[in-house]
Amino acid sequence: MGYYQMNEKLAIEYLVEHGVFDSATGLTAKEVGDGNLNLVFIVKDEATENSVVLKQALPYVRVVGESWPLSIERTIVEANALEIYNNLTPNYVPKLIHRNDQLSLIVMEDLSHLELMRYGMIKMQKYPSFPEHASTFLADTLFYTSDMYLSSEEKKKLVAKFINIELCKITEDLIFTDPYHDADTNNINPRLRPYLEEVFWKKTDLWREVSKLKYKFMTEAQSLIHGDLHTGSIFAGENETKIFDAEFAFMGPAAFDVGKIIGNIFINYISWSGKDEDPERIKDYRSYLLETVIRLHRFFERKFIENWKKDALNISARAEGYRDDFMNNLFTDTIGFCGAVMIRRTHGLAQNLDVTGIEDLQKRRDVQVKLLELGEKLIMNRHSFNNLEEVTNLIKENIE
Amino acid sequence: MGYYQMNEKLAIEYLVEHGVFDSATGLTAKEVGDGNLNLVFIVKDEATENSVVLKQALPYVRVVGESWPLSIERTIVEANALEIYNNLTPNYVPKLIHRNDQLSLIVMEDLSHLELMRYGMIKMQKYPSFPEHASTFLADTLFYTSDMYLSSEEKKKLVAKFINIELCKITEDLIFTDPYHDADTNNINPRLRPYLEEVFWKKTDLWREVSKLKYKFMTEAQSLIHGDLHTGSIFAGENETKIFDAEFAFMGPAAFDVGKIIGNIFINYISWSGKDEDPERIKDYRSYLLETVIRLHRFFERKFIENWKKDALNISARAEGYRDDFMNNLFTDTIGFCGAVMIRRTHGLAQNLDVTGIEDLQKRRDVQVKLLELGEKLIMNRHSFNNLEEVTNLIKENIE
Repeated sequence: MGYYQMNEKLAIEYLVEHGVFDSATGLTAKEVGDGNLNLVFIVKDEATENSVVLKQALPYVRVVGESWPLSIERTIVEANALEIYNNLTPNYVPKLIHRNDQLSLIVMEDLSHLELMRYGMIKMQKYPSFPEHASTFLADTLFYTSDMYLSSEEKKKLVAKFINIELCKITEDLIFTDPYHDADTNNINPRLRPYLEEVFWKKTDLWREVSKLKYKFMTEAQSLIHGDLHTGSIFAGENETKIFDAEFAFMGPAAFDVGKIIGNIFINYISWSGKDEDPERIKDYRSYLLETVIRLHRFFERKFIENWKKDALNISARAEGYRDDFMNNLFTDTIGFCGAVMIRRTHGLAQNLDVTGIEDLQKRRDVQVKLLELGEKLIMNRHSFNNLEEVTNLIKENIE
Repeated sequence: MGYYQMNEKLAIEYLVEHGVFDSATGLTAKEVGDGNLNLVFIVKDEATENSVVLKQALPYVRVVGESWPLSIERTIVEANALEIYNNLTPNYVPKLIHRNDQLSLIVMEDLSHLELMRYGMIKMQKYPSFPEHASTFLADTLFYTSDMYLSSEEKKKLVAKFINIELCKITEDLIFTDPYHDADTNNINPRLRPYLEEVFWKKTDLWREVSKLKYKFMTEAQSLIHGDLHTGSIFAGENETKIFDAEFAFMGPAAFDVGKIIGNIFINYISWSGKDEDPERIKDYRSYLLETVIRLHRFFERKFIENWKKDALNISARAEGYRDDFMNNLFTDTIGFCGAVMIRRTHGLAQNLDVTGIEDLQKRRDVQVKLLELGEKLIMNRHSFNNLEEVTNLIKENIE
């Protein structure tokens, strides 16, 4: 059967037909998608409270509409990644229940008892388990899909399986290209435009350095990366962290995932400068955020190295001094990608509610300029930082 | 029809059946393969003198025998690469006449009026057109299959098309791993063994640096590289240069092809220290060799940059200063790969007749030690050389 678009009724029928639920009696379905690319239904048995999520790819970019077509094969990518994640790090991703590549849909564990981390952070929610959980996710997925662990053959098969042309192109354009010139895809706060035109778009050194990062993204097939690991791709609670939306996954630079999540936390940090909130509460939340980033990164490096010591099957990975060099490069690239993410989220196509929630456009502009300036500093100085504390100190010094 | 192994009679029948020749009358066939992996027949119409080459992959590594099985899909890789080369740089590769993926065979232009460059160089043959021709081949194939020129989609399709698991693995093992320890695959001059055991295999810094080069080879999908560009993969005459045997092709680091051909010329340069030959002739030939290398590399860089200026469609490639940085990295990696190739050819599985032709094992050992020492210097100092002249000067200073 060919592709057809689900609605709430069809979603229920489909799940019963495929044995996910025994019968349609008492089932309810609700479309809750707020991403850019998909329909998302929560289907629930009101009697037992059992529920699942059915996610179906739309053949266009939802936020733009049918004028931007997009192949629906990305659900195959997401299902493939989720299978690997279910195997490598089952605690920190939704359980994959069912996949149908023809319909471009996957059925997975319902995580709606948790809140999207981005929304929680806008309300100053704290996530004490997040550094522990996310660092394990990163260390395990990035190490065990790399040449350090996999055989040459297994690794190359992953490269072929995750070619993911269209979604990589979105990142290449929207993160590494369009924010650096006056592209149609940009979404520009009118108060920010003068700064972009007079200052930001004239920074040729920055454009060169970002182009190097883009080239890394396009050529370095290191690990299976999630590819879109921002705070809107994470459901979190006090003791739970679930990373989803892996449709951008491909074999790319490991630092991209690490830098992207850190960059999104920095965005939240900086966003408070534009908000009317008790300064003491802001101060407290900001310390929490920097501590979170530091712990996340420290745990990640520790666990990645532990994996390496335990399971580096590639004998070259055991050459003396090689791992240190690898970890240094990984850190440098992480800071670069982190900066690129901070920049794209200020005036690129997809922005963060952390900042767009600031209704006063002048205040929003001031936050955005800070983001651009700090993003630039991170990228330009990425080779000079010795550790993440030096980066968080820079952020702290520049923001109040 | 499934795979069957060709012989001279079957090769003639096949070519007539597929219209390459009109009739079998007057056709002769001769098996001339001296590579490691294939059968090669020259089939000739004695009346017209027309001839073609039919190359068929064997399902094992020929030099080792049936105990080392190898899938025959590599001919598909070679045919795919040859199609691209026929398009990009038709003057410097054999013309592809026919392919049969089921039989793992290709039929191509017969180049047997030319000599294998390695054999010619062992006889001090000079190739005045080689730098001009080979630099065009390198500049055009490496630029026009890169992200600088191709669309993101076209490039990623090439990555998928040239996954080439088995032949990449051969390089990973035989070039970047086995020569650095006492591996069974090595083929060691008994007079060299003490040096390997007491000196060479203890060099942990070298092993670390080679591991970095190996990782580049495994992860950096920059351009469609030939993958085995030594002097035994080139037919050359006074005014002709034809590069063949592209079965190792895949999307890898561009510097690998450049470094490999330069390394093979350096091997010939150093080999003369072990030969009884008129010192004046040696001196003259050696100047020719270094001049060849310098011109090859200078022309390559010039043409690559010309292609870039003319045809870099990726706007990021036009960022100010970006190309210079790219060319610097390309040069550094070239010297690294060049050194690795010099090392692997001294005691790895596949060696060069330039050196194995030295029958006195002690003299051969002395040449091999020079090769190892210089290969190491190139790898360890690859970040410090400013240009190829500094490298050729080093070679010159160390060899008489």
